[in-house]
Amino acid sequence: MTDANGVEIVRGQNDTPTIMYIGQHETHRTEIVNQDLLYRAQNAGYDLLSAPVSTAAFQSRVLGVLQAHVETLKASSDPGSVPCPLVKPLTPDDTDLVPHDSNASFIAVVSPWIDLASSDPLIAHVSRQVFNLEVAYAAFVGISNVLVQGPISSMGVTQYARTLLEGLGLGPYVQLHVLLPMTGELEQDISADGIHLSELARPQYAEDFEDVEEDDDEQANMYAHWETWNTIRTVCNYSTKLSIALEMPRLLPSLSLQHRWSSEPVRLLTLPRTSFIRNNKGFPVLSKQHQQYLSQFLRLRFPPWVLLSDVGAITSTVVEAAETAIVEPTPAEAAVKSTPQPENPPQHLQYLRHLQQTQPVRPPIERFGQGYQDYMQSPLQPLTDNLESITYEVFEKDPVKYEWYERAIALALKDLREKLGKQSKLVVAVVGAGRGPLVTRALRASVSTGIDIKCYAIEKNPNAHVLLQRRNATDALWNNKVTVVKSDMRTWPGPITTGRDASKADILVSELLGSFGDNELSPECLDGIQHVLHPEHGINIPQTYSAHFTPLASPKLHADLLSRGSTDLNMTVSEKWELPYVVMLHQFDYLSTLPLTAEDPRTPAVEEAWSFSHPQSEAILDLARKRAGGSIDAGGFLGGDGTNEHNARSCRAVFTSANGGVCHGLGGYFETVLYCSNDRQKVELSTNPVTMAEKSKDMISWFPIFFPLKTPVYVPDDGQMEVSMWRQTDDRKVWYEWIVEVYIKVGGKKMKVGGSDLHSSRKNGCLT
Amino acid sequence: MTDANGVEIVRGQNDTPTIMYIGQHETHRTEIVNQDLLYRAQNAGYDLLSAPVSTAAFQSRVLGVLQAHVETLKASSDPGSVPCPLVKPLTPDDTDLVPHDSNASFIAVVSPWIDLASSDPLIAHVSRQVFNLEVAYAAFVGISNVLVQGPISSMGVTQYARTLLEGLGLGPYVQLHVLLPMTGELEQDISADGIHLSELARPQYAEDFEDVEEDDDEQANMYAHWETWNTIRTVCNYSTKLSIALEMPRLLPSLSLQHRWSSEPVRLLTLPRTSFIRNNKGFPVLSKQHQQYLSQFLRLRFPPWVLLSDVGAITSTVVEAAETAIVEPTPAEAAVKSTPQPENPPQHLQYLRHLQQTQPVRPPIERFGQGYQDYMQSPLQPLTDNLESITYEVFEKDPVKYEWYERAIALALKDLREKLGKQSKLVVAVVGAGRGPLVTRALRASVSTGIDIKCYAIEKNPNAHVLLQRRNATDALWNNKVTVVKSDMRTWPGPITTGRDASKADILVSELLGSFGDNELSPECLDGIQHVLHPEHGINIPQTYSAHFTPLASPKLHADLLSRGSTDLNMTVSEKWELPYVVMLHQFDYLSTLPLTAEDPRTPAVEEAWSFSHPQSEAILDLARKRAGGSIDAGGFLGGDGTNEHNARSCRAVFTSANGGVCHGLGGYFETVLYCSNDRQKVELSTNPVTMAEKSKDMISWFPIFFPLKTPVYVPDDGQMEVSMWRQTDDRKVWYEWIVEVYIKVGGKKMKVGGSDLHSSRKNGCLT
Repeated sequence: MTDANGVEIVRGQNDTPTIMYIGQHETHRTEIVNQDLLYRAQNAGYDLLSAPVSTAAFQSRVLGVLQAHVETLKASSDPGSVPCPLVKPLTPDDTDLVPHDSNASFIAVVSPWIDLASSDPLIAHVSRQVFNLEVAYAAFVGISNVLVQGPISSMGVTQYARTLLEGLGLGPYVQLHVLLPMTGELEQDISADGIHLSELARPQYAEDFEDVEEDDDEQANMYAHWETWNTIRTVCNYSTKLSIALEMPRLLPSLSLQHRWSSEPVRLLTLPRTSFIRNNKGFPVLSKQHQQYLSQFLRLRFPPWVLLSDVGAITSTVVEAAETAIVEPTPAEAAVKSTPQPENPPQHLQYLRHLQQTQPVRPPIERFGQGYQDYMQSPLQPLTDNLESITYEVFEKDPVKYEWYERAIALALKDLREKLGKQSKLVVAVVGAGRGPLVTRALRASVSTGIDIKCYAIEKNPNAHVLLQRRNATDALWNNKVTVVKSDMRTWPGPITTGRDASKADILVSELLGSFGDNELSPECLDGIQHVLHPEHGINIPQTYSAHFTPLASPKLHADLLSRGSTDLNMTVSEKWELPYVVMLHQFDYLSTLPLTAEDPRTPAVEEAWSFSHPQSEAILDLARKRAGGSIDAGGFLGGDGTNEHNARSCRAVFTSANGGVCHGLGGYFETVLYCSNDRQKVELSTNPVTMAEKSKDMISWFPIFFPLKTPVYVPDDGQMEVSMWRQTDDRKVWYEWIVEVYIKVGGKKMKVGGSDLHSSRKNGCLT
Repeated sequence: MTDANGVEIVRGQNDTPTIMYIGQHETHRTEIVNQDLLYRAQNAGYDLLSAPVSTAAFQSRVLGVLQAHVETLKASSDPGSVPCPLVKPLTPDDTDLVPHDSNASFIAVVSPWIDLASSDPLIAHVSRQVFNLEVAYAAFVGISNVLVQGPISSMGVTQYARTLLEGLGLGPYVQLHVLLPMTGELEQDISADGIHLSELARPQYAEDFEDVEEDDDEQANMYAHWETWNTIRTVCNYSTKLSIALEMPRLLPSLSLQHRWSSEPVRLLTLPRTSFIRNNKGFPVLSKQHQQYLSQFLRLRFPPWVLLSDVGAITSTVVEAAETAIVEPTPAEAAVKSTPQPENPPQHLQYLRHLQQTQPVRPPIERFGQGYQDYMQSPLQPLTDNLESITYEVFEKDPVKYEWYERAIALALKDLREKLGKQSKLVVAVVGAGRGPLVTRALRASVSTGIDIKCYAIEKNPNAHVLLQRRNATDALWNNKVTVVKSDMRTWPGPITTGRDASKADILVSELLGSFGDNELSPECLDGIQHVLHPEHGINIPQTYSAHFTPLASPKLHADLLSRGSTDLNMTVSEKWELPYVVMLHQFDYLSTLPLTAEDPRTPAVEEAWSFSHPQSEAILDLARKRAGGSIDAGGFLGGDGTNEHNARSCRAVFTSANGGVCHGLGGYFETVLYCSNDRQKVELSTNPVTMAEKSKDMISWFPIFFPLKTPVYVPDDGQMEVSMWRQTDDRKVWYEWIVEVYIKVGGKKMKVGGSDLHSSRKNGCLT
């Protein structure tokens, strides 16, 4: 089985092995990077090797060009008449890279001494030339992964971003990785050997210096680098060719900021020497927090590569490496050398391989959904359909769902028996019985409670009907006692019983809920079968269900939708923003969270959108029936007769975001009370991240739903997101509408700072 | 001549008459609105008449439905089982309106006693039914203009907006006008006769009450109603079927807020009795400020209709009207009657007609551009081309442009004569001579200064070449002394003179500037002809030019682009956002203004993007020529050889917006120094709104340029817009890129609150 992207999807109960590609990186590599070094690195156990695109000779040449230009400017009476300096193409002296089959194992490193964000146009111009030459050359020799320093100052981020956008066009397979610290300064030493161009910026372009004054504020902003990244990727229109090389620092920042970064397209995770600590044996290891954060990344569908940075050169023996040193060490360098040398590099590598082997077991829903992380399925092809055809067996083994149904049925049977006495068998009808799992559960509940039932299984799918009949004949528990009816539930006349309450069921059991509760039309279907339920004491399982939602930052989903054409011939490209998707949300961040708890700061603020309960009031159904055909009419909302208007809903909820971010859409969930007994025992299912652990831990049958926003909305720190949602109906269809508006309070005044369009899935709504 | 919308464009120097449609409106109309009343209104001089859709009987019926429902709820043990109340369709008792040919003269008024924004779902539900019934019925009888109260509370604006969106779909020609005060409360008495539904809202939906506490802040927000409107139209996706009925208050708010409102689609301007004052004779007149504001509206391409509100009933005689009163007045009403009666309504009407006749004369550019206000032309079909084929005569009569060219040439001739002595004739070449207006100016300058010249006219258009030759033979001033050359200026070998400096011109005169200065490739063209200019003393007219810009709120332009398909078969629909438009900006608001002046608060903050000067440095041109073909290369920016790279530019500017708003794009302008003489006399042209009055008042030859934003960007109060722009080139093309980012400072911390995509006109760039 492959998904839409042609990726092989590994499914099943066994955990898939953890993948970890590990590269070796040195910020000041002294050895020439060539096939020999790569071979030695691979022998040492590395998968990848970083490679500076250009040599020190190139740096000297560029510096010469710049200095000559500055001299010319000084000597000129009309500096405006002096042409900008040109950096001519690379010469063999300027680079050690050559085309080779194994170049895919290299990560090219753009010269760290350029300053693409410089406010001095001359420095920016020369830097851009160096960047373009180096990226184009790397692409030419077949190295598509290119590591580039993030912008030095926050002032020129847009200019920096525009240059990267240009870089993405320099080759069809170019993938740019922007090296960024999580917060503050990079820990690895990226200071250039020789002069950094930013040191040459001319005083008249003093913005950089002014910026320093503002830095007091900016240092306080832990999210500054994330904001830089957000600007870069926005300018680059969420290009899938642009990603992050994130440096794991010695001390991890707040869990909130960790989650923010892990929701972004981190393709390289650089581990500098300083991110390791020593265990009792002096062996380099990661702290528990670092291990957990790494594990989070490794659980992604496409985990980032790990780049071990400056943990020791690649050597056959240490002696050999020492021989390569040509220059006499300065006293300072000698001092460094007298401190303990970095161990044999494989120590760090061995440790990572050890971690790889000992990754914690994933929770059940991740195991079952392996390969489906962040994969959006349009409700036109519901995930459940797709899954059931392949892994039906697995899903009937949901460790929670059917078990809870059985408990609910048992409680309902006991309550009814108490109420009605032992006068006759209770009638239990499973509507939409499928292959019959709920029939089995009803029969088991009957056995466990000792309450005799008459069981009906209603199913309109002729294929499933065959299975139901076979099961009735062969299953010891069913034992031919189940009445199997092939019928649409809305047209089924009801049980044919004799005696008490002919043609009425005492309990109706159904499993019609979708990811957002009502989105697979459970309310409409259950309205349609309510005529067979006993009007006084009839029980619906589920009794009630509600839809819940919270705003999400989900750059991955946004980028996926942006790069998608229409998924349907009848759909225009822009309609892809106008419908919700069933998706196993994985790489994302909650924008609004509840006050931190010690264990996890990611408890999201989830609000209830609306709820439904069954049986529906007869007065309401009666009026609905009368409205059909237009004889009773109230203006015909949205074009229909209003016969389904009682199932329309709307809501408005406010979410506060402490750390701000970008809202890409809404995550949707549901909760349901299968049955609440007379003595207040509640049997509940939930996919709501706040309550799922308590109500139905490890349930795997539903993924969340995602309502996208066509244009992502910025949310400032402490910003308020007002979300309005509607469940609309025109009798023929049911659809959703959603809009997000953002406010901040400044000095007690509430100001709107942004908002989305009104989105509507009317064109792709479910038919009733 | 008609424009793209089929609207007849009246052009010429004569001012077009001011159009003013005036309607009569009563908030508590006692008479039945029918054809008879309309006839009397039209006899009195009104064009339009407002008409409540429903009667008091309908109001009573709805109230009955609601009250019965509330009783049922109270009596029910399970209120959730009670169906929502239905308002059945209108009966003949419920409305006085019937289909009629003359119904187009009516403005239907939706019942003012509903509350579409109520937080009580019951009230909102019933209100929505009333709204839908009334709008649908108005549409049915042929009244497409429907007036509806704005939302009562700011809490339910999104819900209100969603209902209006529904209303827009109730008929193909429905036009909804939302009645809003400019700030604070409406002055006209719209209090319902009878009970307003908001009074029935149930206490448990207490949001409305909570809202009162917040109102302290909201009252301070003069822009609250504008923000309400902004939310409504955003939800309705800038529908052209949705507009504002704006109430002109007794006291006008700040000029900034006035401008904000007049930039919006105000289709109805309601003038309540209180907006008038009495002159010495006791006659109702408008204050000077009110007159000026009204004039601003009347100068729009489609001026709003004026609705006189509660200035007196329509009567043949006062006696007749009295006879229609059936009900005995209450003591209170009798008390009202004893106060002075409103005058004969035509007094207000006569006054407005008087204003209509005496509107101030429009400035020249508005007269010339009449019909072109806010009409966007793509640079693919430059406005000048279009205009010149029809109104060439008019444009050569630009009162400023050619006069200033003549002054510039005269100054240049004098400077050169002083420098070179009388050794020989000075050579003046007009490049891109067209029909020859600049040739005439050069000859006139020669006459006025007494400095003899040898004049060349270079033109590649064969049709214009015919005219130039004819003019040389027939024009007394030209007198066959002009050398007319048919050639592309870039391939012209230069003047064939004998003696001194053969093949070089002393002065090159051109008019190659576009609305944004360099956008019609003046830099590239002048580079191409520089080889014929004398290398030591040669003068280019213009000498320098610069591009300038400022952020705009321009909902009209945004709505126009939204509703447009692609204007070009080779262009996708979304590309319409990726190119600038030449447009006579009219209905818009500057988002960033300089500190208020007494006269006009609309002095925008305009920043320079970049500039060009001629002649270009020979060293720069020399390098550019060498780069052609790739022998000197610096990595080939953006795909070319870099031969035009010296004409690339970029800039970044920050604009502060005191009152916030929504940024729909950037307005672009230019300034040029035609010539700056040795004694520092500058001859300049400017379309920059800050300097145009000083530098070239009443110049009509150029409209501004507009760079749109695909997704409008919110700007909070005191928000900072950071705009980055680029003039890019790949040698084959020149194009622009632009992006807007928005920040606020809260407690010293700078936060990003929004930003646009990076826009690029590369696909539709100008060919060099």
